[in-house]
Amino acid sequence: MSELLSNFVQGRWQAGSGAGAALFDPVLGTELARVDATGLDLPAAFAHARDTGGAALRALTYAQRAELLGKIAAVLQAKRDDYYAISTANSGTVKKDTAVDVDGGIYTLSTYAKMGATLGDRRHLLDGDAARLGKDPLFQSQHVLLPTRGLALFINAFNFPSWGLWEKAAPALLSGVPVVIKPGTATAWLTQRMVKDVVDAGLVPAGAISIVCGSSAGLMDQLQPFDVLSFTGSADTATLIRQHPAVAQRSVRVNIEADSINSALLLPEAGSEAVDLLVKEVAREMTVKSGQKCTAIRRVFVPEAQYAQVAEAISARLAKTTVGNPRNESVRMGSLVSRAQLNAVRAGLAQLKDLTQVLHDGAQHTLVDAEPAVACCVGPTLLGTRDADAAALVHDMEVFGPVATLLPYRSAEHAVQLVRRGQGSLVASVYGADAAALASTALELASSHGRVHVISPDVAALHTGHGNVMPQSLHGGPGRAGGGEELGGLKALNFYHRRAAVQASTTVLAKLN
Amino acid sequence: MSELLSNFVQGRWQAGSGAGAALFDPVLGTELARVDATGLDLPAAFAHARDTGGAALRALTYAQRAELLGKIAAVLQAKRDDYYAISTANSGTVKKDTAVDVDGGIYTLSTYAKMGATLGDRRHLLDGDAARLGKDPLFQSQHVLLPTRGLALFINAFNFPSWGLWEKAAPALLSGVPVVIKPGTATAWLTQRMVKDVVDAGLVPAGAISIVCGSSAGLMDQLQPFDVLSFTGSADTATLIRQHPAVAQRSVRVNIEADSINSALLLPEAGSEAVDLLVKEVAREMTVKSGQKCTAIRRVFVPEAQYAQVAEAISARLAKTTVGNPRNESVRMGSLVSRAQLNAVRAGLAQLKDLTQVLHDGAQHTLVDAEPAVACCVGPTLLGTRDADAAALVHDMEVFGPVATLLPYRSAEHAVQLVRRGQGSLVASVYGADAAALASTALELASSHGRVHVISPDVAALHTGHGNVMPQSLHGGPGRAGGGEELGGLKALNFYHRRAAVQASTTVLAKLN
Repeated sequence: MSELLSNFVQGRWQAGSGAGAALFDPVLGTELARVDATGLDLPAAFAHARDTGGAALRALTYAQRAELLGKIAAVLQAKRDDYYAISTANSGTVKKDTAVDVDGGIYTLSTYAKMGATLGDRRHLLDGDAARLGKDPLFQSQHVLLPTRGLALFINAFNFPSWGLWEKAAPALLSGVPVVIKPGTATAWLTQRMVKDVVDAGLVPAGAISIVCGSSAGLMDQLQPFDVLSFTGSADTATLIRQHPAVAQRSVRVNIEADSINSALLLPEAGSEAVDLLVKEVAREMTVKSGQKCTAIRRVFVPEAQYAQVAEAISARLAKTTVGNPRNESVRMGSLVSRAQLNAVRAGLAQLKDLTQVLHDGAQHTLVDAEPAVACCVGPTLLGTRDADAAALVHDMEVFGPVATLLPYRSAEHAVQLVRRGQGSLVASVYGADAAALASTALELASSHGRVHVISPDVAALHTGHGNVMPQSLHGGPGRAGGGEELGGLKALNFYHRRAAVQASTTVLAKLN
Repeated sequence: MSELLSNFVQGRWQAGSGAGAALFDPVLGTELARVDATGLDLPAAFAHARDTGGAALRALTYAQRAELLGKIAAVLQAKRDDYYAISTANSGTVKKDTAVDVDGGIYTLSTYAKMGATLGDRRHLLDGDAARLGKDPLFQSQHVLLPTRGLALFINAFNFPSWGLWEKAAPALLSGVPVVIKPGTATAWLTQRMVKDVVDAGLVPAGAISIVCGSSAGLMDQLQPFDVLSFTGSADTATLIRQHPAVAQRSVRVNIEADSINSALLLPEAGSEAVDLLVKEVAREMTVKSGQKCTAIRRVFVPEAQYAQVAEAISARLAKTTVGNPRNESVRMGSLVSRAQLNAVRAGLAQLKDLTQVLHDGAQHTLVDAEPAVACCVGPTLLGTRDADAAALVHDMEVFGPVATLLPYRSAEHAVQLVRRGQGSLVASVYGADAAALASTALELASSHGRVHVISPDVAALHTGHGNVMPQSLHGGPGRAGGGEELGGLKALNFYHRRAAVQASTTVLAKLN
C-alpha cells in the first residue's frame, strides 16, 4: 500500500482512519499515495482555525502578513524541484506545464507580498473618503474594511494543486483570515506537500493554515456566518454548494468559479500578423496542461472567408505536438490527470463530433514512451462547423481537455452574439491590429467576461497569454462561469473583508486613520 | 369590491385575471384596493424589460440617466400629498413616519441624481488604474465596469413601499439596468401609484420600469444569468430564494437584506449627556414606524450599574407616546401595517416575556381614536433582563414592532461579545464622549455590522439617527442580516455592473477612456 498522506488540523498532523482514496501516476498507472479524512474532529478543527488562527493573523499588520507571504514563497522556491517531481508523477505534466502551476503559485504569492507591503502597519483599511451627511461637516460617514472574523474554506480543483491553493491563500492570509484547504483528490499530493513544507518551516501562526485531504463530506456543515467559501470545479457541484444550508441559511459568503466556454475572436480585416497570433495562441492554449485549464480557449471565431485558412494553420501546428510521457524530453504535451478525466474528454468529444467536422484528429497522434492502454494521454483535436448558430452544444458544453471548435461568423455583431452564447465566461481573447476596433470589441465583451485579453502585433512578444491568470487582473466570470471574482490585485482582499460605514463626528473619524 | 390595481409590464397596464388579494386600512379595517398578477405573460414581460428597457438605458450616458432620476424625483415631489394620504390609509403611519418612507425615497433619488451627474458623458466606468503585467509598460491590465445586460428584479418588503423602491431603483437605473418591482402586498398601493405617476409622466424609456403586484409566484423562474435580484424580507424567504435554480444554478447575482437584531451600546463611563442621547434615541427608534424598520434598535446594552437608571428613563419617554389613529394630531405612533403583523408581534412578545421582565408595558397605552378590536395598533414595550448571557432568544429573534430589550454588561469586552451574538446586523449605535473609545469600539463592531452609528454630545443635534438609512452609507449586514450591500454612495452601482479586466496594449487601453 502506498503512503497515506496526513491531514493538518488543530495544529497537528492526523491520519484518517479509513482505507483512503488512491492517487495515481496518470502516465504509468502506478499508485502514488492515498488520502483519507475519516474520523477527523471537524468541529474542533474549524474552531481552532477560526479562533486561534484568526486571532493570531488579525494581530499582525498587513505589512507583517505580507512579509509572511514572502517567506512562504521563499520556502516553496527552495523546494521547487520536489514539486516538479510530484507534478510530473501525479499530474503527468511536462516541465513548462508544471511551471504554470508551481511557479505560477509562487509568483502569485510574491506579488501579494509586494502589494501587501504597501498597505503598511495597520489592521484595518479605509474604503474611500469620508462623505458629509448634511450641510454641517462635523458629522460624516467613512467606510472601513475589517477582516472577517471567520475562516476561509477552499474546495479546490484537481488541475492546479499549487496555483489553485496559493492564488486563494495569498489574499486570504494577507487579509488576516485563516485558511482550510480541501484539494482536489486526484492531485492532492502536491498541495499536501507544499502545506507540509510551509508548516514544517514554522512560519505561520498556529491555526492559520489547515489541510483536509480526501472527501469533502461534512466540511460545509462546519461553516458559520462569518466564514467564507471559495469553490473551483463543476457547475453541478456549484449548485449543491449554493443550496447547502451554510450558504442558503447562514449567509456564508461564497465565491464560485465553474464551467467556462472561453472564446478567441479574430476581428474582421485583422491582417495577417493578427491571424498568425491567433493561430499560435489557439494551438498553445489547446495543448498547455493538455487543455485542463478553466481559462483554455474552447471556441475560435473567425470571419467566414478565413475559416479554411485558419483551420489549416491551427491543424498544422497541432500536428507537430508530440504527446506522451512527460519524462521524455521530446514530449510537448503530457497526459490528463486521471482515467476519469480521459473518459470524460472522450465522451465530450464524441458528443461534439456529432455536430462538427474533425479538422485535426487527436487520435492520429502516436504516444511517445507511453502505453495507450494505460496512459491517460489524448492528442489535441480541432473541430469545426460552418454553421456556428446551429451547433448549440458547442456553446454549452466544456470538454476539459485539448479540444477546441472553429466557428465562422458573418459580421462583427454576429461574432459578439456568438461569443455571448457562452452565457458568461472567464476570458475571451481578441486579435486584430486596429486599436479602436479592439477597444470597442473589448468593451462589448466585458460585461459577459471576467477578462478580455487583447492581442495585437505591437504586443506579440509581450502579452501574457490568453489562459494565464495574472494576479493583477480579475479572475472569474459571470453566469455559467459561476459569478465569482478572484485576484485583481488588492481587489481580492474584498472577499475576505467586511465593509461597514462608520457614521460619526469628524473627531471620532480622525481616530480611525 | 375595491379597485383592482393594474400591473405595468410589456409597456402597458394589465389587470390580473384572478380575484386578487385585498389591501386594508390597518386602523379602520376597511378594504382599500386589490392586487393580482394572475395570467400575466411573464416571459414576455421580462424579455421586454431586459431587451427593450436595457438597450434604451444603456444607450444613455450616466449623466443622462442621472438627469432622469432628477426628473423622477420632481414628479414624485409634485404628488407628495397623494402619497402621504395613501400611506396614512394603507400603512397607518403618522406624518413624520410617512416622511421617512416618502421623503426618504425622494431624497435618495435626488442624491443619486447628484452623484450620477459627476460620472459624466460615458457609458462604462474605469475601475482603478491600469497595472503593468511585466517590466515593459506597453502591455497592461485595466479593470472596467459595464452595466449588466439583464434586468433587476426587486422583491420588496411591506414596511417601505416608497423608500424600498427608490433606494434600489435609483442605483439600478443610474447603472443602465431596467427594473421589475414586486412590492410587498400589504402596502403595494403606494409603490404602484408612484410607478404609475412616473410612467404617466412619460419620462422613462419603454421597458425601463415594470411593476407586478400580488404574488411573486413564477417571477424568479424568469431570471437569466445576467439578471440580478434584490430581496428584502424574512430570513426564511431568503433561504428559499438562495436555493432557487435561478440563483443556485444560473448564478443570478442576489442581494439579500433579512432579519437583524440591531444594538445600541452605551460605553462605560460615557457621561450623563451620552446617557440622555441613548435614552432619546432608543425611545425614538422603538416608536418610529411602530418599530417596523429593519434598522430599529432591538437590544440596548448598558453598564450593569446603569441598568435601573436607563430602564426608568426609557420607560418614562415611552409612557408619553400616544398611540392610535394617525389622523388624530395628538397621536405620535400609528399602527402596524396589518393584522398578520400584529399577531406576529404579539406572539414574539409573548416568547420574549418568558425570559425577561416587562420594564414598560405597551398594553397600558389606551388607543386614541381607534377601536382596539379593529386597529392593528400596539403600544411600545421595553423588556429587560439582568442576565444578558442566558437570554438566548433576545439575541436570536427579531420582533418586528415597537419592542426592545435592555441588557446589562460587565465590561467593554463583554459588551462587544453580546452585541456579536446577533450574528451579523445592519446597524449598531454607540454612545459615549471619548473619541478614542468610540472609534475603537466602532472598529470592533464594524466586522459584524453594515453600519456603526456613533453618537457623541458634539453631534447631538447633527447626527442622522440610528435607524435612518443615508444613501451615502452602506446599508446591509453580514450573517443573519443577509450579507447584502446596498447604497453606500456610488458603491451601490457595483451590484448592477459587471467587472472585467482588459489586458491590452497601452495604445488599445487609451481608447477605453
